Amino acid sequence: MSASERRYAPPAVAVSAVAFALGAPEGAELGDADADAGEALEGTLWLPLVRRTREPFAGVWALPGGPIPWDETLAESAERTLRATVGRSPGYLEQLYAFGDVERSGRGQRLVTIAYWALYGENDLAAQAEFPAEVENIAWFSADRLPELAFDHADIVEYALWRMRMKTEYAAVAHRFLGGTFTLAQLRRVHEAILGTEVDPANFRRQALAQGHLVDTGEVETGTRHRPAKLYRFREN
Amino acid sequence: MSASERRYAPPAVAVSAVAFALGAPEGAELGDADADAGEALEGTLWLPLVRRTREPFAGVWALPGGPIPWDETLAESAERTLRATVGRSPGYLEQLYAFGDVERSGRGQRLVTIAYWALYGENDLAAQAEFPAEVENIAWFSADRLPELAFDHADIVEYALWRMRMKTEYAAVAHRFLGGTFTLAQLRRVHEAILGTEVDPANFRRQALAQGHLVDTGEVETGTRHRPAKLYRFREN
Repeated sequence: MSASERRYAPPAVAVSAVAFALGAPEGAELGDADADAGEALEGTLWLPLVRRTREPFAGVWALPGGPIPWDETLAESAERTLRATVGRSPGYLEQLYAFGDVERSGRGQRLVTIAYWALYGENDLAAQAEFPAEVENIAWFSADRLPELAFDHADIVEYALWRMRMKTEYAAVAHRFLGGTFTLAQLRRVHEAILGTEVDPANFRRQALAQGHLVDTGEVETGTRHRPAKLYRFREN
Repeated sequence: MSASERRYAPPAVAVSAVAFALGAPEGAELGDADADAGEALEGTLWLPLVRRTREPFAGVWALPGGPIPWDETLAESAERTLRATVGRSPGYLEQLYAFGDVERSGRGQRLVTIAYWALYGENDLAAQAEFPAEVENIAWFSADRLPELAFDHADIVEYALWRMRMKTEYAAVAHRFLGGTFTLAQLRRVHEAILGTEVDPANFRRQALAQGHLVDTGEVETGTRHRPAKLYRFREN
C-alpha cells in the first residue's frame, strides 16, 4: 500500500500499556532528567518507556506496546509487552480505554490502541528479571519528569493516572504496591504517590485506622534506625 | 485472502453499541417474544438489535455496529450506527470496553470490537425520526426477553447492564432517562428498570428525599386519573 492508500484504509489495532511502580527496578536505566537529578524521586510513581526506532516519531519515547498477534487476547498482548519491557509480569493489569482519534498516528496507517494500565508492587519487581531479548531503548521515568511522548501517549498516561486516583478500592491498589505487611508511614507514602500530593501524617493515621481495613499484626518494623513502627496488614475481603 | 489466511491475519477493529431506553419508540418493530406477549414490559430496559444478513451468524440478532471508516472517531462511528438503527441520536454515549477474545468472531477474520453503551431518554425518542435508509431487520427487545445473540454480544449486553448499575451517579443516569421534571413514582420506576428488581415505594420515597438531590418544583402532574403527584427536578450540580 502507498502512504495515501494507508491513509484511507480501515484502522489497524494495537495495545499500549502504562505500568506504574513506586520506584524504578534495581539496575534499570533511568530517563535523562531522572539520571541528571542524581536522586530518585521516591514519593512519586515511575513508569517504563520505550524509545521508538522507526517513523513516525523515531527517537521519541513511547509507551510499551505493539500489534496484537492473531492468537493472543488483548490482555495477553499487553502482559507480554510488559514482560518484554520490565522483565517481569505486573501484579495487576486492567483495560483502561480504547484510543482511536483519527489523527493520533499522524498521516500513516490509522491505529486504534487498546490501552491497559498495570501495577508493579515491590514483590513483583523483586522477582528475577527475565529479559527475552535486548533491553536497549528502555528506561524508567518518574511520572513528574516525563519526556515528550509519541502519538497521544501523554494523554493516555494522564488518563491512567486519573483512573487510578478515582479507584474507590484504594486499599486494593495500595495492597498491590505494598505486599503483606506495612507501616502506616509506608501506606501513607503510597497514597501520596497515587494522589501526587502530601498528606498530613496525623490525619492520615486517624482516618486509616478508623476505616477498619487495617489489622495490627502485633509485629514491628525491624532493621531501621528509627523507633520501630507497628506493622499492619489489610483485613481479608 | 483465503479463509485460512484470514485466520492468522492481525485483528480488524469495529464498534458495537448497547442502547438502553425505558420503552420501545412509537411504531418500532418489536422482537417476537415481546410482540407475542402483547404487552409492553414497561418496568424494564429496552434495546434495539439488528438481524444479521451475512455469515457468520446470518439470521441471528446482533448489536448495532460495524467497521470504523478512516475519518470517524470511535464515538462518531458508534453514534452514526445508532442513528441508522434508532433514527435519532442518543442522549448519552460512553465507551464501555474493548472485546477482543481470540475466538469471538468464529473462524473468520478476527475482530476486536470497541463497545459503547448509550441512553435514549423520553425526549431523545420523542424527536422526529430520521431513518437514512431501510429499517428492515431492526427490532426492539426488552432486556428480560432477549433472543440468542451473535458473537459474544450477550456478554457485551451483560457488561453494559452491570456498568450502568455500578454507576455511582445514579442521578445523572436517571436524569438522562427522565428529562426535566418527574414524579417520585417515575424516578422509582427508572431505578427499578436499571436494577432489574422492585423497590419498596415508601423506602424509596424516604431515601430519595433524604439525599438532597431533589427539588420540589411546586408543580403537580397533570392529565392523570390518579391523585396529582408532586413534580420534582434534580438540584443543579
